Amino acid sequence: MNNYKTVSVAEGARTELHGVLNLTGAEISINSLPAGASVPFVHSHKQNEEIYAVLEGEGSAVIDGESVKLKAGDWMRVSPSAKRRFFASETTGLKYVCIQVKENSLEGYTTTDAVV
Amino acid sequence: MNNYKTVSVAEGARTELHGVLNLTGAEISINSLPAGASVPFVHSHKQNEEIYAVLEGEGSAVIDGESVKLKAGDWMRVSPSAKRRFFASETTGLKYVCIQVKENSLEGYTTTDAVV
Repeated sequence: MNNYKTVSVAEGARTELHGVLNLTGAEISINSLPAGASVPFVHSHKQNEEIYAVLEGEGSAVIDGESVKLKAGDWMRVSPSAKRRFFASETTGLKYVCIQVKENSLEGYTTTDAVV
Repeated sequence: MNNYKTVSVAEGARTELHGVLNLTGAEISINSLPAGASVPFVHSHKQNEEIYAVLEGEGSAVIDGESVKLKAGDWMRVSPSAKRRFFASETTGLKYVCIQVKENSLEGYTTTDAVV
């Protein structure tokens, strides 16, 4: 296997990268909700921490019953057990990235894992 | 600790999220290189897979001596051992996200880890 793999992500409701890029430490999806739309279910996780990044637009998340406003440039960590659901605003779509990683799986990073 | 934590990322040369968001399964940085600039060193990793996403602009990466063109919307997985260096194009800056995760750390994901 090559030491790198690339993909160019076009517009779509949801693009999942794990299979496309042969990821082994994360699953990453790029998601688009049109204005007024929402993910039609609440979910939590067994062991995965999720990190969400808003790329474009505005919306909100309801986390364990609490509403959190979101806009482009916002990043959010959500614990595995938290019950979450995502909404675009009524007037603007919401484009966001969701990164799934196993909670407590990271050991060294940056200066303690890099070789320069 | 709360079940979620958010941060809004402003413009800057480099923003690191591990400490800000109490991440436990990843380190994530948001990086901006002005037109004509590059990261001034080559690096690899001991055990972390890296996933790069280009948010804005154009540039390139040199991976194990091979030049790979990059533009907004591109995603790339890089193996721990690969020697990498990043460059903005001569005329356009490059804004990109770097996600560090431990190689082979992900177990279940999406349908096998989610609880709906």
